[in-house]
Amino acid sequence: MIDTRPYRIAPGKRVELCDFATREDGGLSKKTGKEMVHELTKRLAALQELLYAQRSQGLLVVFQAMDAGGKDSTIRRVFRLLDPSSMRVKSFKQPSQREQLHDFLWRIHQHAPRRGYISIFNRSHYEDVVAVRVRERQPQEVWQKRFEHINAFERLLSTEGTLILKFFLHISKDYQKERLQRRLDRPDKVWKFDPGDINDRKYWDEYMHAYSEAIESCSTDNAPFYVVPAERRWYRDLIVLQTVVDALDSLQMTYPEPKFDPGDIELI
Amino acid sequence: MIDTRPYRIAPGKRVELCDFATREDGGLSKKTGKEMVHELTKRLAALQELLYAQRSQGLLVVFQAMDAGGKDSTIRRVFRLLDPSSMRVKSFKQPSQREQLHDFLWRIHQHAPRRGYISIFNRSHYEDVVAVRVRERQPQEVWQKRFEHINAFERLLSTEGTLILKFFLHISKDYQKERLQRRLDRPDKVWKFDPGDINDRKYWDEYMHAYSEAIESCSTDNAPFYVVPAERRWYRDLIVLQTVVDALDSLQMTYPEPKFDPGDIELI
Repeated sequence: MIDTRPYRIAPGKRVELCDFATREDGGLSKKTGKEMVHELTKRLAALQELLYAQRSQGLLVVFQAMDAGGKDSTIRRVFRLLDPSSMRVKSFKQPSQREQLHDFLWRIHQHAPRRGYISIFNRSHYEDVVAVRVRERQPQEVWQKRFEHINAFERLLSTEGTLILKFFLHISKDYQKERLQRRLDRPDKVWKFDPGDINDRKYWDEYMHAYSEAIESCSTDNAPFYVVPAERRWYRDLIVLQTVVDALDSLQMTYPEPKFDPGDIELI
Repeated sequence: MIDTRPYRIAPGKRVELCDFATREDGGLSKKTGKEMVHELTKRLAALQELLYAQRSQGLLVVFQAMDAGGKDSTIRRVFRLLDPSSMRVKSFKQPSQREQLHDFLWRIHQHAPRRGYISIFNRSHYEDVVAVRVRERQPQEVWQKRFEHINAFERLLSTEGTLILKFFLHISKDYQKERLQRRLDRPDKVWKFDPGDINDRKYWDEYMHAYSEAIESCSTDNAPFYVVPAERRWYRDLIVLQTVVDALDSLQMTYPEPKFDPGDIELI
């Protein structure tokens, strides 16, 4: 079992992402780490069934990262043993014309998990205080208010029964280059490459600054942010898994008692 | 590789479900069968990536069965290696008040897969010509028209780029009893048991009759029904997997060529 608290951002703590490691192993060998990951995926599947059986809480897991930061592969690997019936992965892309006519949380709210379900966000409303901020250069008062809106929104979800965990998968600019180059070099991966993404690399520092402020402003007790060193994929998976499993464990769920006596039921 | 054609209902063929086997092994040992299942799940994951990369077609897989027929476990096992990001499992329960104010295909249409995605239906519009027919005892003209509506709807989806495969997981009344009893006996399964489900057992023959007619009326070239002997779970999985893999293979998909020359891209 690994202690994930060092990766959790305490509310109010100053965040400068350049001070955070992008590559760690927690003193574990890859072999041990992968075994731990395997055990935790099984444990998570068991906890999902309990969550579904109870239908009293939902779980929302948010992933943010720079391009090639590993959001897709984390989602595929961490949740791979879950029952797809009570889990939803929602990837937020550019908002549609209709979505743009609403406030920025309108389209997000629709994908909040119902009780018993797990919603996984691949990108999220944090794009609206990071990418939008960097690209559209809106004035401080716009995104400052948005931080408050986000905190109020997440407080609503949390109070009404949603467990929220947010992960920033942290990589370096050099590592991103390596990963993008790999996409370009592989005929079966090059379809994932969008030449427009290169532009964002020019604004790397602005992105890190915007992310630092968003994480610092919106890591709360009921919706904490974790900054995960993401360049070793097994270690990244391990931290995410342990965090999700610990959070579900803390609910101390049990299978609901039937409202009837099973011994009384006679099957005709 | 297994030949799934014997399980496919040819358009216009008379169907009497009582003549169909509920338990088969195709002459395979369980060990061999499970190895084949494992290989096919991997193959399916590779085909899903191609489907997503191409974004030219969607895949809709429909599961119908009596209670305890294995819809949930088939979905969990057959699709377990898929990327959850481009797959959706939709379980259709009793329609909501709002849904009841619409035609019976309104809520179904909303969950049709977009291009590149896989939608899996746990129950579907076939409830409206089976369970509804048995329970509400509506006149023949109602469900007869519904068969036509369903065929027109599925033709629309198919023509516009959706591959459709429909599976009836076939079990016997005795096997259902065994499975339901197992739920009652296990403290970690009893929450799945709904005492109301027992009622349906009284109407077993009516259900089989309604299913027979629905399958016979709605198995078409562009949306075929497969009647799968479902009491041996590994064999059931094998038939479903082989059918899905064959259908995707027939699309002869390749990774899309990039619209740019990867060699021209220089990462700054």
